[in-house]
Amino acid sequence: MFRLTVGYDGTAFHGWQTQPGRRTVQGVLEAALGDVLGAGVQVNGAGRTDAGVHARGQVASFEAQTRLPARALSPLLGRVLPADVRIARAQEVPSGFHARHSAIARRYSYRLLAADDVLWSRFAWRPPRPVPAAALERAAQALEGEHDCTAFQATGSSPGTPVCTIFRAGWVPWEGGLQFDVVADHFLYHMVRTLIGTSLTVGRERDPRAGMRRVIEGRDRRRAGATAPPQGLCLEQVFYPPEAAA
Amino acid sequence: MFRLTVGYDGTAFHGWQTQPGRRTVQGVLEAALGDVLGAGVQVNGAGRTDAGVHARGQVASFEAQTRLPARALSPLLGRVLPADVRIARAQEVPSGFHARHSAIARRYSYRLLAADDVLWSRFAWRPPRPVPAAALERAAQALEGEHDCTAFQATGSSPGTPVCTIFRAGWVPWEGGLQFDVVADHFLYHMVRTLIGTSLTVGRERDPRAGMRRVIEGRDRRRAGATAPPQGLCLEQVFYPPEAAA
Repeated sequence: MFRLTVGYDGTAFHGWQTQPGRRTVQGVLEAALGDVLGAGVQVNGAGRTDAGVHARGQVASFEAQTRLPARALSPLLGRVLPADVRIARAQEVPSGFHARHSAIARRYSYRLLAADDVLWSRFAWRPPRPVPAAALERAAQALEGEHDCTAFQATGSSPGTPVCTIFRAGWVPWEGGLQFDVVADHFLYHMVRTLIGTSLTVGRERDPRAGMRRVIEGRDRRRAGATAPPQGLCLEQVFYPPEAAA
Repeated sequence: MFRLTVGYDGTAFHGWQTQPGRRTVQGVLEAALGDVLGAGVQVNGAGRTDAGVHARGQVASFEAQTRLPARALSPLLGRVLPADVRIARAQEVPSGFHARHSAIARRYSYRLLAADDVLWSRFAWRPPRPVPAAALERAAQALEGEHDCTAFQATGSSPGTPVCTIFRAGWVPWEGGLQFDVVADHFLYHMVRTLIGTSLTVGRERDPRAGMRRVIEGRDRRRAGATAPPQGLCLEQVFYPPEAAA
């Protein structure tokens, strides 16, 4: 079993997952692997990122009958992949490894722009009404812990438990403004982007922390904020138990 | 006379200056102005950036017979310009204003990447051999002041004096690594990119400041470093005397 750590600029992709007739990261990666290995393979991705969402640390796993060592894969794939996809690392992993099922946590970032910027706007979003860092940080304080996150899930979406354990949620400064960092065991559909929209809404209230807590407890998508646009979001890292990733 | 402050992602442009059959920023801007004003205009740019070089604060000037107020130009141009060009500001200026001739100084940045990164690599360059910040800063200390900068000029290039006054040259940290900031009254062809290549070379010597001084005094392009690639470079700002820019 092989594991790839993959980065991509999501701007020109219709998301991760293969869709007929559309350019997707999974599709481009499977085509490149087909070229390199001389046989078709199917890859599993840790996170099914949406159209326009970026990744620095997406993880993909696949089974292949090849005598190529893992360390040869990264340079060979680099020659056939387009410039907006990079392989950061290729390694052999135990046969039971599955990029999505074996993952125990994921880290996403969401970048806000403090001012319009023609360079950073590819990877960040400028909200129409900015909110002070201290208020955003107050709102984030309500997020850490185990919660039913139904309020932040796109309506009509995924099966599975809406209870997520958020290990970390907080804001740090970056080059162009403020960046939200969030680590959780799993994420619901559109969850990070809805957390951003909600943070910007409750961040204008007198007590942003209480506002965020009220939204969580309401378990009603209609009481959360808007879904922030995709270009600010980046899948930064996927975590595995040591025995799975060895 | 009108003055525009223009930002662009230079990746998909063959530089600023109009060239037949190629996509250039000047060409795209003149076409957009033609649409908005209903008449052809010729714009002058403060800096003729090369293919792949970005700008946040390029300045363009043009004369036009129009009853449109300057404040209407920016939103109207925004509707017809492609996403990789933005108008940050549009203003009316005294009739003698010329974006290039009136400028008294320009500020450029050059971003180095500390590690390969699929997002930032669009706007920054990862040198094959990194050099510590302290050594780069030492090399930059030799740059401020008035110098004959022939050593940093692409061979066979531009007429005019090779003597430049460098008001500031130094390094600051940014999101992905280190950023060179340089302000000078004017720049020779490929000068900033050659300053980067030279900084990376003399930065590995025992005394980077003396090394940079030696290259300046040699006035010989062959003794300077390689020309760093364009994607790390950004024209950040152009300065004018108060009376010209009013």
